[in-house]
Amino acid sequence: MKILLVGASGTLGSAVAQALDARGHELVTVGRGSGDVRLDVSDPQAVGRLYERVTGLDAVAVAGGEAVFKPLDALSGDDFTATLRTKALSQIELVRQGARHLAPNGSFTLVTGILSEEPVAGGAAASAANGAVEAFVRAAAIELAPRRVNAVSPTLLTESVEAYGDIFAGYEPVPAASAAAAYVRSVEGRHTGRVYRVGF
Amino acid sequence: MKILLVGASGTLGSAVAQALDARGHELVTVGRGSGDVRLDVSDPQAVGRLYERVTGLDAVAVAGGEAVFKPLDALSGDDFTATLRTKALSQIELVRQGARHLAPNGSFTLVTGILSEEPVAGGAAASAANGAVEAFVRAAAIELAPRRVNAVSPTLLTESVEAYGDIFAGYEPVPAASAAAAYVRSVEGRHTGRVYRVGF
Ligand SMILES: NC(=O)c1ccc[n+]([C@@H]2O[C@H](COP(=O)([O-])OP(=O)(O)OC[C@H]3O[C@@H](n4cnc5c(N)ncnc54)[C@H](OP(=O)(O)O)[C@@H]3O)[C@@H](O)[C@H]2O)c1
Ligand SMILES: NC(=O)c1ccc[n+]([C@@H]2O[C@H](COP(=O)([O-])OP(=O)(O)OC[C@H]3O[C@@H](n4cnc5c(N)ncnc54)[C@H](OP(=O)(O)O)[C@@H]3O)[C@@H](O)[C@H]2O)c1
Repeated sequence: MKILLVGASGTLGSAVAQALDARGHELVTVGRGSGDVRLDVSDPQAVGRLYERVTGLDAVAVAGGEAVFKPLDALSGDDFTATLRTKALSQIELVRQGARHLAPNGSFTLVTGILSEEPVAGGAAASAANGAVEAFVRAAAIELAPRRVNAVSPTLLTESVEAYGDIFAGYEPVPAASAAAAYVRSVEGRHTGRVYRVGF
Repeated sequence: MKILLVGASGTLGSAVAQALDARGHELVTVGRGSGDVRLDVSDPQAVGRLYERVTGLDAVAVAGGEAVFKPLDALSGDDFTATLRTKALSQIELVRQGARHLAPNGSFTLVTGILSEEPVAGGAAASAANGAVEAFVRAAAIELAPRRVNAVSPTLLTESVEAYGDIFAGYEPVPAASAAAAYVRSVEGRHTGRVYRVGF
């Protein structure tokens, strides 16, 4: 399959790229400063340009996204707005605008994370964005059929323990390769409207 | 207790007002064109003015909010942005800015709805907003303590069957009074981080 992969250069994304490549898929990678196509998917117009440039897609997989982490009393209204844009609206736009470009048996695989269900101090904006994406996935699935949409929700990745381990004290990490397997399950399987928890 | 009630003139809000009143609480009601204080809570600066004007609060309860309903292929990026603002960010702002104004044993009670879990066609933006609020409630709870925050998630209200019954075909409705009881439970109880499902 021809698969658009957003965030292929990242911690999670590089494992997803490897897993999809190992399954023989053709990847078109996207990032702001990395990948085959360089643009910011949190800009809805850039998403429009993306789908004009890259055609014949069977699947879209997202492994990128950013969230502001700060104590709740330090998070500003703009921090919440920005996190909803970069982590939730960006993915919603990739689905919304991508639906008519995708093959009828095509699929979207989005990324959330454990914070929608198991919060940590400092993660309220990320939690809200993840919750928006997960509920959107359940809702969009019933309108996108036969096209499909799922989300992968990993706990802390082993590869990120050094960077985020303190925020997630006591959360057992999972290798990025395990999260990547859930992408393969979403892309090659027949599920829709699912949130695949990985490692929790 | 002195309770700020946003949306007290609405279908749900009038039942909440009645239930809180019956429990002997003092209400300060808020709406854009109704209530003791008239302003738009989806404007973060208006929320700031609200907390300057109304002081000595023990609790904040939200029973208002708006979402755009359209088939997924008709929902625009702006529809998603607007729905996240009027239904999710408005409530997040009421908590974020309200935290330091509320009594230490005070509480926030927000509103979501069944669509975060059980989607209907046309409701993808509302689902996303509800999902954001529910995950935010779980996350904010651990940082707001001893202040508390919960959400009430009703299914279709009996009083709204005529307006929305077709969208929710086969969803058994629940009286607004039952959803209002969950507000009393949240305000007077000790729970935090909870999403009270009502009628489903
Ligand atoms: N790491 C973890 O432990 C973990 C656990 C659970 C969930 N997650 C979630 O998984 C996702 C990826 O995390 P990660 O740790 O792998 O992040 P990362 O290492 O920072 O990688 C992010 C990737 O996404 C791309 N990207 C980011 N924003 C973009 C934008 N606006 N437009 C286009 N491309 C963009 C980046 O490329 P450019 O810099 O070139 O744009 C990069 O390839 C995040 O949503 C995160 O919340 C991560
Ligand atoms: N009705 C149902 O069956 C049902 C079921 C599940 C969940 N819900 C949720 O419950 C909430 C209320 O629904 P409802 O049917 O009771 O709505 P409604 O009858 O339209 O009432 C909305 C109330 O909120 C106020 N309001 C709306 N936007 C506002 C804003 N930006 N700033 C200040 N006040 C605002 C309105 O007053 P003004 O017009 O004066 O501003 C009104 O008092 C919504 O979030 C809805 O999604 C409803």
